[in-house]
Amino acid sequence: MGVDPASSRVRVRRGARKGRYDAEAVASVLARGLVAHVAFVDREQPFCLPMLYAHVGDRLYVHGSRASRMLRRLSESAPVCVTVTVVDGLVLARSAFEHSVNYASVIALGRFATVEGEAEELLALESFTEKLLPGRWREVRKPSRAELKATTILSLALDEASVKLRTGPPDDGRSADATLPVWAGVVPIETRFGEPLPAPDLAPDVVRSASVERLLELDAQRSSS
Amino acid sequence: MGVDPASSRVRVRRGARKGRYDAEAVASVLARGLVAHVAFVDREQPFCLPMLYAHVGDRLYVHGSRASRMLRRLSESAPVCVTVTVVDGLVLARSAFEHSVNYASVIALGRFATVEGEAEELLALESFTEKLLPGRWREVRKPSRAELKATTILSLALDEASVKLRTGPPDDGRSADATLPVWAGVVPIETRFGEPLPAPDLAPDVVRSASVERLLELDAQRSSS
Repeated sequence: MGVDPASSRVRVRRGARKGRYDAEAVASVLARGLVAHVAFVDREQPFCLPMLYAHVGDRLYVHGSRASRMLRRLSESAPVCVTVTVVDGLVLARSAFEHSVNYASVIALGRFATVEGEAEELLALESFTEKLLPGRWREVRKPSRAELKATTILSLALDEASVKLRTGPPDDGRSADATLPVWAGVVPIETRFGEPLPAPDLAPDVVRSASVERLLELDAQRSSS
Repeated sequence: MGVDPASSRVRVRRGARKGRYDAEAVASVLARGLVAHVAFVDREQPFCLPMLYAHVGDRLYVHGSRASRMLRRLSESAPVCVTVTVVDGLVLARSAFEHSVNYASVIALGRFATVEGEAEELLALESFTEKLLPGRWREVRKPSRAELKATTILSLALDEASVKLRTGPPDDGRSADATLPVWAGVVPIETRFGEPLPAPDLAPDVVRSASVERLLELDAQRSSS
């Protein structure tokens, strides 16, 4: 996958234990995240916008309307930074200073390339749909020629990516603060799915898709474990 | 608060119904988010890194170690973009093309200023702690002089900020797809707190803080409503 631990641009400088460079760690965070923050520069001003993404092999995909100013800018092969962050818990220490969160973040640098050709476009669109909800692609109407034409799909090679993370209990256990009578520990943050809301115009005889039922089952299992 | 709807740099160009500029909308998203993505430019390369933040009046604060390369760069008054995104649900349409997420995002442009003076520094640090967990500040040891000295606190005036959002059901209800026998609707995404994990070195007679108990109570109330 070519994640380059030697790239000084993505080397994590402070808190060395927080940095990881291997492709497996990158893939694991990208699998858990849902939204990427994509940063680019336009006339010296950085912009950072949330986008859905998909991850296939050593590439990350984003997409949007062909008419969007941002997509046009990104497709000009300007340098970008794509960041995906998942937050896992509140880190509560005895001192205000040591409060933090447990998290994992992928930071990928590079330049987007425009995906050309219906085969890779369809593969990317399938990946977006499946990332949102596994099993969904086979249930829905596939993109038409006109829809493909209206969409720009961009791909980024993940060859300059790193993972930054914090895990574990607060850091003040071996300081003078350890004896303070203040509860310290981690409160896990969990993502759950709520009761699905049918579209108001849904025909009354259409039952919930298998993909949605599976999502709720998995969620209930996680919730009770 | 001075949020400027006329700023063309933060005007939302596509999907006009998705843009909102008022200070109240900005404040509401900032209150719900936990992590900001901060974008800045270093030698033409944009970087986008996750940071904890606090929001007081018309200012947004971030902080970090005085020795951090990123903090040094941000304190040089370079142009930045600070983005806070909350994701509310999976939007499941009958067509792959119309799949999306419901979300709200604040995008703020500007330049950070370094907070000087112990009073504003302490106020900002109190805000960070209280944002992480309301009620926590009064329970914990306050920052020492040495800790204040080791910390850089930066503030951004929110006078060029906008909210981008998507709400509601999928958009294909009035298209030819509406009659397809595919379930469509929204699956809400909810954030919950798990069972707190005490620090391994916590003295056995220290009970959970009131702030933590309150957090869990509020969470249980939301969960059952």
